[in-house]
Amino acid sequence: MTSKIENLGEFDRIETFLKPLAAKLPGAFCLHDDAAQLGFPANTEIVVTTDTLVSGIHFLGNEKPSSIARKVLATNLSDLAAKGAKPFAYSLSLALPPSIDDIWFSSFVEGLSFMQNKYDLALLGGDSTKTPNDIVITASLIGIVDKDVGMIQRGTAAKGDYIYVSGSIGDGAFGLSVARGDLQDDYLLDRYQHPRPRLEYIDLLKQFATASMDISDGLLADAEKMGKASDVCLCLEKSKIPLSESVRKIVDRDSEAFETVVTGGDDYELLFTVAAENVQHLEASAKDNCLSITRIGIVVDKQESFQSLIDLDGKHITFEKLGFTHR
Amino acid sequence: MTSKIENLGEFDRIETFLKPLAAKLPGAFCLHDDAAQLGFPANTEIVVTTDTLVSGIHFLGNEKPSSIARKVLATNLSDLAAKGAKPFAYSLSLALPPSIDDIWFSSFVEGLSFMQNKYDLALLGGDSTKTPNDIVITASLIGIVDKDVGMIQRGTAAKGDYIYVSGSIGDGAFGLSVARGDLQDDYLLDRYQHPRPRLEYIDLLKQFATASMDISDGLLADAEKMGKASDVCLCLEKSKIPLSESVRKIVDRDSEAFETVVTGGDDYELLFTVAAENVQHLEASAKDNCLSITRIGIVVDKQESFQSLIDLDGKHITFEKLGFTHR
Repeated sequence: MTSKIENLGEFDRIETFLKPLAAKLPGAFCLHDDAAQLGFPANTEIVVTTDTLVSGIHFLGNEKPSSIARKVLATNLSDLAAKGAKPFAYSLSLALPPSIDDIWFSSFVEGLSFMQNKYDLALLGGDSTKTPNDIVITASLIGIVDKDVGMIQRGTAAKGDYIYVSGSIGDGAFGLSVARGDLQDDYLLDRYQHPRPRLEYIDLLKQFATASMDISDGLLADAEKMGKASDVCLCLEKSKIPLSESVRKIVDRDSEAFETVVTGGDDYELLFTVAAENVQHLEASAKDNCLSITRIGIVVDKQESFQSLIDLDGKHITFEKLGFTHR
Repeated sequence: MTSKIENLGEFDRIETFLKPLAAKLPGAFCLHDDAAQLGFPANTEIVVTTDTLVSGIHFLGNEKPSSIARKVLATNLSDLAAKGAKPFAYSLSLALPPSIDDIWFSSFVEGLSFMQNKYDLALLGGDSTKTPNDIVITASLIGIVDKDVGMIQRGTAAKGDYIYVSGSIGDGAFGLSVARGDLQDDYLLDRYQHPRPRLEYIDLLKQFATASMDISDGLLADAEKMGKASDVCLCLEKSKIPLSESVRKIVDRDSEAFETVVTGGDDYELLFTVAAENVQHLEASAKDNCLSITRIGIVVDKQESFQSLIDLDGKHITFEKLGFTHR
């Protein structure tokens, strides 16, 4: 069907492809106005997060456009999940080079639509413009929290809290190797291309987490950020870090690969802390709700070097590179 | 001072340059979290608008970075003004190529700071990332409206309403010619580089406007958009369109230049409609508050060709190009 579509102008693209994404939000005025008007239930506040994906930096460019669309919403939804906020709506800025045709655009919108249906979101508005070269996609997501609970912050971990992560760590980093053709593994590629925002953990986090953030720049780098923001140190045990079967095999073959696990980024899992007295309740509740969580360390006093990873024998492990910075 | 600054990494740039811009908004958590939390007064709703500026498309690249920063906020503030919304806070995505140094960054932040002080805004968060080539800057602004009044829409102009604009039309379009070196005129250059969002008109609009939008793509193109959204036709009188002294001189020399006045874009003035019975009140109120407004036409029934511009003798004028599309 899409092969018959001529390349539409900016306004027609909005009308044809984007307008249906705003249909269920009356305040988006079918994207026919300069702005959207949004109201929220009494006793709630909003949580706003923004993520930008750039071709050649955050994605390789050979992905399906629908995968890129899914990722730009997933990275933002992952932030909302970590903050304990229920997704509501998003604005989208599409800055695209002339090489982008309607087939690309149509596949991109398919990815947005997939995520909207899966996570009950609506498009509220945005901007669409040309660039000379790069694809630059920015989404701002709005989520909702109860006013008296508020969002779960990053800077509120306390000494003695236990440290947990959701799911498994390192899949995204090795998935990138697959995407680059250095490795073959469909599971890892999918984990890299289609991160699953951990929204099903929101109730658990709201009940038990003293601090929370999502892991996007690598476990160690993000643990350091949480430590800095909370004025404590997150001490992680190497042997406890949960690995998928695929990553376990890679690390078993080459122990050096472990550095990639904890510094590689693109995990989109949750890192959170829980007061010692709530650990049993937390673990029981996670089990009841089939949510995979793993205790990987403990919060200690602030130290010279903020983050630390200890070995089975208690030795501190350091890596040259702390985390992933997009270059 | 800035010449002593080495080029900082992404995190240090946020810490050094951007954190102070978020200082007065507690829910921005000093930009140390993944998201911001915002609360609004009871009986209000929010208005959200997004604009993206791209190097080589929306600005030439030889402007002062502070001017680019002022423009990205001004274009968004102009939308809020047209909607009758009071500015509150904004998120910012900075996607910048490696050539951007801290001197550029520091000047850019100066421009943001200027606008924040002038329009009582705060930075709520955002994203900062590298691009291979282009400068792509996206701001999403959040404004506030009374719930029972709501935002002033674009699609609510009615037959018989009178059509008004604020300020003067065409300055931005000829200002672009100055920026390109085709013309010399400091007033026009300033109008192009530093658009003034017409926030001082908000009370007037809220009291009298039946529909409103800002003029950014050219008066004719935007009048057509308002007509389409309202299912009417906006009939404008050529002789009534207000021109600055600078533009008047250009048009007097070359009558063909008038096409640029109404199709050139970058005006950031307001286009609004008012019910006939309120016209006297409106004009008196505008005069009392020293707000420059000009009646330029009347809303008529929907016609074959949506927009129309009539000459003194009642003849319809058409132009090949309706408005400005960034190419």
